[in-house]
Amino acid sequence: MDNLYETGLAANAANHTPLSPVTFLERTALAHPNRLAVIHGEVRRTWAETHRRCLKMASALRKLGVRRGDTVAALLPNVPEMLELHFAVPMIGAVLNTQNTRLDAKTMTFMLNHSRARIFFTDREFSDRARAALEGCDAKPTVIDVDDPSFDGGEALGTMTYDQLLATGDDDFQWQPPEDEWQAITLNYTSGTTGNPKGVVYHHRGAYLNALSNVIGFGLPSGAVYLWTLPMFHCNGWCYPWAVTAVGGTHVCLRQPHPEPVYDAIANHGVTHFCAAPVVLNMLINAPEELRKPFDQAVTVATGGAAPPAATIEAMEGLGMKVVHLYGLTETYGPSLVCEFQDDWQHLSLKDRAAKMARQGILSLSMTDMMVADPNTLAPVPRDGTTIGELFVRGNSVMKGYLSNPDETHKAFAGGWFHTGDLGVWHEDGYVEIKDRSKDIIISGGENISTLEVESTLYDHPAVLEAAVVAAPDDHWGEIPCAFITLKRGHEHLGQDDIVAHCRANLAGFKVPKRIIFSEELPKTSTGKLQKHVLRSQLTS
Amino acid sequence: MDNLYETGLAANAANHTPLSPVTFLERTALAHPNRLAVIHGEVRRTWAETHRRCLKMASALRKLGVRRGDTVAALLPNVPEMLELHFAVPMIGAVLNTQNTRLDAKTMTFMLNHSRARIFFTDREFSDRARAALEGCDAKPTVIDVDDPSFDGGEALGTMTYDQLLATGDDDFQWQPPEDEWQAITLNYTSGTTGNPKGVVYHHRGAYLNALSNVIGFGLPSGAVYLWTLPMFHCNGWCYPWAVTAVGGTHVCLRQPHPEPVYDAIANHGVTHFCAAPVVLNMLINAPEELRKPFDQAVTVATGGAAPPAATIEAMEGLGMKVVHLYGLTETYGPSLVCEFQDDWQHLSLKDRAAKMARQGILSLSMTDMMVADPNTLAPVPRDGTTIGELFVRGNSVMKGYLSNPDETHKAFAGGWFHTGDLGVWHEDGYVEIKDRSKDIIISGGENISTLEVESTLYDHPAVLEAAVVAAPDDHWGEIPCAFITLKRGHEHLGQDDIVAHCRANLAGFKVPKRIIFSEELPKTSTGKLQKHVLRSQLTS
Repeated sequence: MDNLYETGLAANAANHTPLSPVTFLERTALAHPNRLAVIHGEVRRTWAETHRRCLKMASALRKLGVRRGDTVAALLPNVPEMLELHFAVPMIGAVLNTQNTRLDAKTMTFMLNHSRARIFFTDREFSDRARAALEGCDAKPTVIDVDDPSFDGGEALGTMTYDQLLATGDDDFQWQPPEDEWQAITLNYTSGTTGNPKGVVYHHRGAYLNALSNVIGFGLPSGAVYLWTLPMFHCNGWCYPWAVTAVGGTHVCLRQPHPEPVYDAIANHGVTHFCAAPVVLNMLINAPEELRKPFDQAVTVATGGAAPPAATIEAMEGLGMKVVHLYGLTETYGPSLVCEFQDDWQHLSLKDRAAKMARQGILSLSMTDMMVADPNTLAPVPRDGTTIGELFVRGNSVMKGYLSNPDETHKAFAGGWFHTGDLGVWHEDGYVEIKDRSKDIIISGGENISTLEVESTLYDHPAVLEAAVVAAPDDHWGEIPCAFITLKRGHEHLGQDDIVAHCRANLAGFKVPKRIIFSEELPKTSTGKLQKHVLRSQLTS
Repeated sequence: MDNLYETGLAANAANHTPLSPVTFLERTALAHPNRLAVIHGEVRRTWAETHRRCLKMASALRKLGVRRGDTVAALLPNVPEMLELHFAVPMIGAVLNTQNTRLDAKTMTFMLNHSRARIFFTDREFSDRARAALEGCDAKPTVIDVDDPSFDGGEALGTMTYDQLLATGDDDFQWQPPEDEWQAITLNYTSGTTGNPKGVVYHHRGAYLNALSNVIGFGLPSGAVYLWTLPMFHCNGWCYPWAVTAVGGTHVCLRQPHPEPVYDAIANHGVTHFCAAPVVLNMLINAPEELRKPFDQAVTVATGGAAPPAATIEAMEGLGMKVVHLYGLTETYGPSLVCEFQDDWQHLSLKDRAAKMARQGILSLSMTDMMVADPNTLAPVPRDGTTIGELFVRGNSVMKGYLSNPDETHKAFAGGWFHTGDLGVWHEDGYVEIKDRSKDIIISGGENISTLEVESTLYDHPAVLEAAVVAAPDDHWGEIPCAFITLKRGHEHLGQDDIVAHCRANLAGFKVPKRIIFSEELPKTSTGKLQKHVLRSQLTS
């Protein structure tokens, strides 16, 4: 018999609209026109103003000849203009490529060429590298300066400023939603350690769904006040430019996540939510007492990139902030797993609670499926908390693929799963715990050593500020664990023996670092991730 | 030049999954297996149990021969089994038709036949009408009894009980997500006042998006405790069976929204949210003092179907409950507009605040566009707060269409907009205020009279419990407003003159009801909407 429900019931303009996060801006401008959309230095703008500026910038870009499928690159810190571009660029079907501001000029040139950038928004702070990047660049984008008064120095490079371009836009511009929600919205290059970076393509549907998933998972209420400690260039700020807008919240911009402006923003602007790597949390915790200011509101912090150590969780709670642990990758629009806090964990000791919270967790709302499995056969590992496998995920907030890179795209999606490249175990309760990146695992005398486990032990030592463990080549063992450590102020006297003794008391013998190197500072990416390849190269050079 | 972003970046199993609210159950069973999913009488079930039961029921229905596109009808009160069917039926691609339990047997027969129901779940409370409905029925569905111990009486009609059917299901059943998110998920017949009811078809995508829109719009936190005062058969309980599940909340079931069990549930189960028509709120407000119980938590109530009068808002706030006003239709999965509370309204007087809150508002998050426009030309009316037009909406939570009814479907979507049939004005701030259903407006001496406006004035009178205004035929004026009124206890002495005087003091002369009829009770639909057609027929008969 025919299916009644599939006869004469096709989609039409009244009942089907392509999903796009741009619609969040439209709705919020209507629902909360007078609420503060953005705070930056002395700048205060409402949602009505921000909405008008986005429409006008979309119009101005259109007049410059930007069309559907064109790339608009942005080398910007967390300023209001960066937020606006997250709406203005997709309004005309173009694709926003937010560039990591700490990369070298050569990589910037590669990205501009590879994405055929038509426009390049820059900030004076990065003018040296931006100029060098443009010199070797075939794409010849039109350069526009965001002239942020809160930064002194550097040089303007462009043909005009953001505000001058804005002034050329029409006030009554009508934007068009994408024809297809699968259309690209942004491009994020992964900072690979070898070879050229890969261009991760996001689409309107995924950005919409991951933004709503963030709102629900992070508990953003209507009118949330969100502090921009996480760079917006990093996975489009985990989709928070769209998520915070969806709830009519306020974006509090910050050029740099230094402790003083963070504490100021929390106290002065009523910040309720922010995202930051554990290393940024440590910076807040270890900031001089006099920088801290009292605040009344509840503050929730999402952290990821590395598991938050127990000491960090405890200290953050002591500061009156609740920590949520997330896991994600550039390829998954940022957060894809969340360590959903179980109601009964609140009765655990801090140590046991921190161990639970260090797990990467389970699927976020916008994801569909996950497994820890054999990287070759895709056979799931047992949920025993010990067998290591690779984490695979599926869902609507997995990238479209890598731009102009069919081989890597094909490899990433082999077998109908996204291969995260992260190794972990699957616990009985379904929670995943990442043990290492594939390339970070140390194999010493045939035994696998999780560098995360060793680092976690090192962090338990009261004198350790930061720790990174990498493999050092060894004739006898193949590889041996080597630890790079920075010490807290006042603990500089500590010797290697203290560290080794602490590790021996807490780790299997073969996991104890065979070399300990004290350092003033560890090399980090712009998002606060430790750059282990830099440390490895120090060992072998 | 070719579009880089549309080359080699097609959807695949890793990055595209059809949206379905069934995935909320999957995720919550993983994230919060031990939280209470459902409370009903003495019944307590966790999410792990509820998940298992849904899978098993899906398996059992499959064994009965139910396939994709088959209709499973349910004539049930708000019991756990009704909640489970919202997941079990779509798990196998079938379509759940929740029937209004107050309809007559003839209409039930029509629905069973029209939807070709394969299965019919019933409850003993409705066995008389269910039996009569089945007698005249060609569809010959398999009848299954939900044997709820909390109801005495009635008769079992079926071949087996829900629990017996459940026992036939496999424990390890694997459900399959829909191949296409546009696939039908449920069927809701509108209780039209003339002709046969129309079968409104919902799809997986719309149910998913409207559920998330509810979570965000109503502010449901993780672990919300939701009380089922609204019937689940009504627009699938505005999609709350899926929304509450998405946040791992607890469903507190109620067979009837009587004041005593409502107050008990709020006090005993920590209810945080519920939905109810204003008439149910009035019932709570006017309940004897001794039925009320103290509670500590914040309680938010969404109301719709009619604008909440100022007195109702004030009294609910006095009871410690916050009121949110929503607007929707069966065709829009329930809520499609929300009266988003503006931050500065809190400083208004109760009267002014209630006037603002009586507006139907602006688009909910899952909708895309709306306008008040001329019903024929679709030209928008000015945003002046006075020009009346019809409300039109567009978005992803508008129905697929009417089942097997191409003419009505075509009419409903004419011009690429959904025609709500509701008449209202558009305010300068973009808020819509409904003045009447097209068929409820009174035209007296060429002047339009909004029955809602007259009713709102009547509700302001301290002695009025309920009021309904309809048109009475009149030789001279064409139509005249006629008011049906029930009075609060202790005010039965009130005369017509008092009412007329109150109206004269507050309304234009032509709007003052020319006839006042006092009544013990006003006829209502099962969802608490006044049945004006019944009142009209009393006037003309």
